[in-house]
Amino acid sequence: MSFRHKHLLGIAGLSAEEIVEILDLSESFLEISERPIKKVPTLRGKTIINLFLEPSTRTRTSFEIAGKRLSADTVNISGSTSAAQKGETLLDTARNLQAMAPDILVMRHPASGAPHFLANRIEAAVVNAGDGTHEHPTQGLLDCATIRKHKGRFAGLTVTICGDIAHSRVARSDALAFSKLGATVRLAAPATLMPLGIEALANGSPGSIEVHHRIEPAIEGTDVVMMLRIQKERMGTGLFPNAREYSRYFGLNRKKLELAKPDAIVMHPGPINRGVEMDPDVADGPRSVILEQVTYGVAVRMAVLYLLAGGISEEGKA
Amino acid sequence: MSFRHKHLLGIAGLSAEEIVEILDLSESFLEISERPIKKVPTLRGKTIINLFLEPSTRTRTSFEIAGKRLSADTVNISGSTSAAQKGETLLDTARNLQAMAPDILVMRHPASGAPHFLANRIEAAVVNAGDGTHEHPTQGLLDCATIRKHKGRFAGLTVTICGDIAHSRVARSDALAFSKLGATVRLAAPATLMPLGIEALANGSPGSIEVHHRIEPAIEGTDVVMMLRIQKERMGTGLFPNAREYSRYFGLNRKKLELAKPDAIVMHPGPINRGVEMDPDVADGPRSVILEQVTYGVAVRMAVLYLLAGGISEEGKA
Amino acid sequence: MSFRHKHLLGIAGLSAEEIVEILDLSESFLEISERPIKKVPTLRGKTIINLFLEPSTRTRTSFEIAGKRLSADTVNISGSTSAAQKGETLLDTARNLQAMAPDILVMRHPASGAPHFLANRIEAAVVNAGDGTHEHPTQGLLDCATIRKHKGRFAGLTVTICGDIAHSRVARSDALAFSKLGATVRLAAPATLMPLGIEALANGSPGSIEVHHRIEPAIEGTDVVMMLRIQKERMGTGLFPNAREYSRYFGLNRKKLELAKPDAIVMHPGPINRGVEMDPDVADGPRSVILEQVTYGVAVRMAVLYLLAGGISEEGKA
Repeated sequence: MSFRHKHLLGIAGLSAEEIVEILDLSESFLEISERPIKKVPTLRGKTIINLFLEPSTRTRTSFEIAGKRLSADTVNISGSTSAAQKGETLLDTARNLQAMAPDILVMRHPASGAPHFLANRIEAAVVNAGDGTHEHPTQGLLDCATIRKHKGRFAGLTVTICGDIAHSRVARSDALAFSKLGATVRLAAPATLMPLGIEALANGSPGSIEVHHRIEPAIEGTDVVMMLRIQKERMGTGLFPNAREYSRYFGLNRKKLELAKPDAIVMHPGPINRGVEMDPDVADGPRSVILEQVTYGVAVRMAVLYLLAGGISEEGKA
Repeated sequence: MSFRHKHLLGIAGLSAEEIVEILDLSESFLEISERPIKKVPTLRGKTIINLFLEPSTRTRTSFEIAGKRLSADTVNISGSTSAAQKGETLLDTARNLQAMAPDILVMRHPASGAPHFLANRIEAAVVNAGDGTHEHPTQGLLDCATIRKHKGRFAGLTVTICGDIAHSRVARSDALAFSKLGATVRLAAPATLMPLGIEALANGSPGSIEVHHRIEPAIEGTDVVMMLRIQKERMGTGLFPNAREYSRYFGLNRKKLELAKPDAIVMHPGPINRGVEMDPDVADGPRSVILEQVTYGVAVRMAVLYLLAGGISEEGKA
Repeated sequence: MSFRHKHLLGIAGLSAEEIVEILDLSESFLEISERPIKKVPTLRGKTIINLFLEPSTRTRTSFEIAGKRLSADTVNISGSTSAAQKGETLLDTARNLQAMAPDILVMRHPASGAPHFLANRIEAAVVNAGDGTHEHPTQGLLDCATIRKHKGRFAGLTVTICGDIAHSRVARSDALAFSKLGATVRLAAPATLMPLGIEALANGSPGSIEVHHRIEPAIEGTDVVMMLRIQKERMGTGLFPNAREYSRYFGLNRKKLELAKPDAIVMHPGPINRGVEMDPDVADGPRSVILEQVTYGVAVRMAVLYLLAGGISEEGKA
């Protein structure tokens, strides 16, 4: 095993070999959720705290299910009930939780870099479950797992990511992961939603990043189309046209999808704004692997929790 | 075993035999909650998601305790933190949860028919924990269990249900269940709160449904008095008088209760508005079985979860 | 074992011997949280309901982790989702929960005396996790455990508690516990925040309580300085100066701490308002044992849950 990290803070800190190791391990965990008894004793007696200081259903639920299927004790803390309301600093909140001896702190935070800040200051392993507009590494990993299953490789593959690249932690984690694994990543967004110099994310990677300001050339001949969720609250702020115009120019419909390779797959991190960034007949169509992403989400998180909680248990799992 | 359903969506879909089968099984689960160690390994490794998109304490807690006493992994999702806030459709929420491979999805939803809509579209077993003004089948079942314990039979029994029949999913599930089992069901409500043609719920059943617009004749000689909770937010809307007037004409006090049989029992699905639909001395009086309903609630839900999760486990329970 | 209580409602009801017994037991539970597998089967099959009708992160999390490390089933109910919203009385809520057969009801409530009111009326053991301005006994116990670890004794010890004594359940539970164990307790607060006659809390105890209206003489030569959290919402109400003035006169900084014994320890129940009641360099300084308090919190709660859930299990733990 090459994985030697204490935390999972971002894709940025992982090598291609480590990514592949997590993907391989995820495959073995995938099978557990298909059993009649979906539970292994691997992390029995470990405590996992899910500290979600931004609203989330799917990611919190995915981590909670992943922890429980590994027999860990999981404790949820959400923003609305947290001490943050009482003016406590994030560091004090984390130190207090640390004093209760958790093994892993899974955290989502509205501020970019919040998990990195804590990782140096507490003993528990920290998993970044989304920090501001920065990274969402388990999403990047589950997207890799899904693509690998369908395409078998990354070298020579073209993956298109389309949407509000500037504010998307999913886009950053995905672009980093796909380029590290050797893919050509095409990012497509209106100019107002595309960060300058984003191509540099691929520096040092075997793959590369290309920038597009129209969706059609970005989709043409691609193997994978990943559509990002549009945050409706950003509409009409100058950055964004209205939903109808966005949909017309940057939404994915059947016609645009015809530009991609015939076997191209369609992905979305969810939740989908149907009819905005993606038409229902594409979301539910034969090329959509959106729900497989969710299924891999649980398996990838099981793998990450397993690796960070110590790797080897007395039960000798995986 | 005659129970062959994949979901529990309503009492409407159950035969009298199936209801009795669930009641019989509930009796054997009742005993588990009385043990010093209140836990059996029956559903170990099963995942139950409690998706409550309306506020609820008692029903969610009852399902959660039922699941835990069967050793299932339970995951709670409540409306205030759900992706529904982000504009996701119910079907997308459910498909996403399905992709995490739950065995059972327990759901409460403000829209009538929501669980039925999902049941055809996901693989997990769906338990309706209350849908709009439609049904609340586990409440109907626990009410049957409570009545059976005290009266031993339904044929020849008269059961009075009084309150806002029009908006009560409890009234519908109860009336269906009691009439299927052979009881005469008397529904009592002001005319504005009584749906036209409600008697038809008993069509095809050995029992029958009678409509009353005053509480006194509905109580006279009855075996069971079930008082419904009044939703205070409906007061003063034209449908409803004020609380004081409602209490005077449709509230249950000791004097009105004297019209019932001497051994009549008093029930309420909770939470009680004391002094509105029921006087405290009746709620806490010797004929009240309100807390037994709650106790049966856990046992009935254990039985339902058991039946839907596969019925037979390797541990050979129940 | 001398502990023969059914509930833990307050320090007021405990003898010095019983406090010491809980502290001794806590030491043995402390070690469980340091193991790789932090879990013992002691309370397997027991149901613990955490009913928190006031916002809380750390206390609820601490009780939840304590319960899970003892293998109990824990169920959380928070105020925002509770039936209290629907106008149900506290007694009805509690009776309903009781009907689901919990072994222990841990409760936090904004009204002083709420747990005492329930304790006589339900069968489950009741643990007061904070009631209004009255008591917070597990906080008192964890503070005792922390002091005992560092000082080894209470007789002859001086402990200073400074802050809004009038509204602090922590101050009351601490003052009761420390004086029962033989310490001299100095309470320091502005006159508007000091209850008249508070010295009487020590009546019948080997220790004593002294009242101070300035912090400097209260700290002089003391062994322990406990700073209370200031509720910012009380600022500017006539009871309270503004934060800056409060900090100047009653906040703990390095200079004031020099008045204490050279080996004095600094405590705080958290969450800290840094720069108001305590300067960051004191909170994070070498004399601070604030995080040890949190660690003892889990151990003390494990001990309390263990004692109340029956004491002796078939597994023969502790």
